[in-house]
Amino acid sequence: MKKVAVIGIGQVPVREHWDKSLRELAAEALLNALQDANRDEIDGLYVGNMLSGTLSGQEHLGALIADYAGLSGVEAVKVEAACASGAAAFRQGVIAVAGGLKKCVAVVGVEKLTEFSGRYTASALATAADSDFEASVGLTFVGLNALVMQRFMFENNVSKIDFGNFPLLAHRNGSHNPNAMFRRPITLEQYRKAKVIADPINLLDSSPIADGAAAVIIVPLEDIENSDKRAAEVLACETGTDYIALHDRPELLKLKGVEISAKKAFRTANLQPKDISFFELHDAFSIMTALSLEASGFMSATEALNRVKDGYFEIRGKLPISTMGGLKGRGHPVGATGVYQIVEAVTQLRAEAPEKIQVKNPLYAMTQNIGGTGATVVTTILKNIRLS
Amino acid sequence: MKKVAVIGIGQVPVREHWDKSLRELAAEALLNALQDANRDEIDGLYVGNMLSGTLSGQEHLGALIADYAGLSGVEAVKVEAACASGAAAFRQGVIAVAGGLKKCVAVVGVEKLTEFSGRYTASALATAADSDFEASVGLTFVGLNALVMQRFMFENNVSKIDFGNFPLLAHRNGSHNPNAMFRRPITLEQYRKAKVIADPINLLDSSPIADGAAAVIIVPLEDIENSDKRAAEVLACETGTDYIALHDRPELLKLKGVEISAKKAFRTANLQPKDISFFELHDAFSIMTALSLEASGFMSATEALNRVKDGYFEIRGKLPISTMGGLKGRGHPVGATGVYQIVEAVTQLRAEAPEKIQVKNPLYAMTQNIGGTGATVVTTILKNIRLS
Repeated sequence: MKKVAVIGIGQVPVREHWDKSLRELAAEALLNALQDANRDEIDGLYVGNMLSGTLSGQEHLGALIADYAGLSGVEAVKVEAACASGAAAFRQGVIAVAGGLKKCVAVVGVEKLTEFSGRYTASALATAADSDFEASVGLTFVGLNALVMQRFMFENNVSKIDFGNFPLLAHRNGSHNPNAMFRRPITLEQYRKAKVIADPINLLDSSPIADGAAAVIIVPLEDIENSDKRAAEVLACETGTDYIALHDRPELLKLKGVEISAKKAFRTANLQPKDISFFELHDAFSIMTALSLEASGFMSATEALNRVKDGYFEIRGKLPISTMGGLKGRGHPVGATGVYQIVEAVTQLRAEAPEKIQVKNPLYAMTQNIGGTGATVVTTILKNIRLS
Repeated sequence: MKKVAVIGIGQVPVREHWDKSLRELAAEALLNALQDANRDEIDGLYVGNMLSGTLSGQEHLGALIADYAGLSGVEAVKVEAACASGAAAFRQGVIAVAGGLKKCVAVVGVEKLTEFSGRYTASALATAADSDFEASVGLTFVGLNALVMQRFMFENNVSKIDFGNFPLLAHRNGSHNPNAMFRRPITLEQYRKAKVIADPINLLDSSPIADGAAAVIIVPLEDIENSDKRAAEVLACETGTDYIALHDRPELLKLKGVEISAKKAFRTANLQPKDISFFELHDAFSIMTALSLEASGFMSATEALNRVKDGYFEIRGKLPISTMGGLKGRGHPVGATGVYQIVEAVTQLRAEAPEKIQVKNPLYAMTQNIGGTGATVVTTILKNIRLS
């Protein structure tokens, strides 16, 4: 099996892109990544996307985006795993290169969510849950996460305000990222007063619906010129799944998919949680931040709620998270999110992040993309080639 | 790179399955394949599907089907490439096993199309075309194929009735396949009188909308017990793409994606068209049968129209096609079709087809799954281990 590296990254800012179509967003990110990698040919294209069929009347994104980016003829395919579609596509790209079947693969995550009313989009997003037994009885994605958060607060006797420091941190970091959707910090007072969406989840617990596209170029590590210190090695990229419906899980508060995926990733990379320099986690809702820190093996969720108050997860803290804003601050264009996480991790490893949110000398980056309420999870560990 | 083999196949009959949900169809095919392979564990699941989000309100099929089949935890993902989704998923499974990243992978193609009115389904299927420049102006899939067929008849001075022998052959073969949707032969007179859908395409030129699921189990060839003569080796599985919109193609009648994919497959397998024992082609419309025979390198499309009259493509002919009914006779549950083709090819190679449609001593089987009007094409060549 070959070692694999990311040699190019590209993105469009996360926004409400009413003036750009799905294919334009995707091609822009893809061409940026190719330029960054200084390549003009690829032999495979993996597109991560969840809702183009439902929201844009367009399936068949592999061929479409290859075509629009001037790469028609190349092998191209769409990969879908709900909100984890981006990282799932990345995983397929890694498999193809690691296995020696491809020499240079592009992975594009793209999603366009803002062309419809929120209600229609919420119902489209609920297709990530169990449609027959969850969505059909009216459970939206916020609703499902609210059930989990409610239970967590009850079992651990914590109050809602304890969660507020996670979105505060995400917005503070995101305010320095020009590609983030939200560029202003928020206060605990704003969090306290934020409109409740599905009790106990409020507006500031929830990552925003957005449009966006991000892309990376993957090659075998052995093909990199020695001088290319901007590349990042993919030490591990591993997937776990869990029961799709919340009611089927033996333990509601345990993210089994995260556990499987993170354990596999640490084993593959031969690392432990303490080795990770920073962690781009899937903070779609504040409760997910706490639970995924626990299931990934970093600390218990209640400990995470305490440590976030002490600066543990800040840029200069022990384990920086959501360094470019996370899903909460950067925005969550679902099928693109997993690729944005990789792009941001590589940006940090290259020391090319804006000064105020640049992690100091990061060696190992971890990203984690979660689909549904944890039914598909992809965890990736990247290594800084420059420093090693 | 490892050699790869299909060791298990499973399917549900192609029907209007109003009594079974998407997950039930998929799990039934998957469990059949596992039983056939005599395995109960896999380390990867690839689901080929196009329209579950639009038509069943259900995305995230990887985790859903793994869960429902009792395999929760396993890596699972959905792959989409319009009507080529099934073979595209198979291709990803082959990549994972060939590259040494997986030891035993299941590929399930599943589609449920008949729960809606034909008009709604036709509009969902049009998402395989260019939504901004084809579907948005009212072009359906039949419409697009009608444009191609019209042009072909004009340029080659052939009449519509010349195409009729293809669906006749498909129905004749399908009538012996218990899993086929249509079990009765049709006559040229019926073809002549069939209702026109989009001139010149009539009802009997068009493969039917259907529900279905098919599955295969893939392992490294080296892991097969010597005694397992029911396995088939995957000599090649290769993908090509083309411009998605018809109007962007330099030559309307040339299936460039087919050409790329077939040429790559022959090169990888180190074979030529004359070596192929039978060909499960993508006869979604009669015109596609003729054009894909040409672009795959077998003969010109006009020659194909002549030879079909002489029995060239019959079970006992030189190059049997659509041996189990093809898309026309077996039915075309879009995202499942590519996997049905593999299942049928393996059935033939094992000499397990119903007697009247069993190809005699087949050594090399070729299957070809086409997405859109040729924008994604996956060609697979399988080898009979029993005879070699």
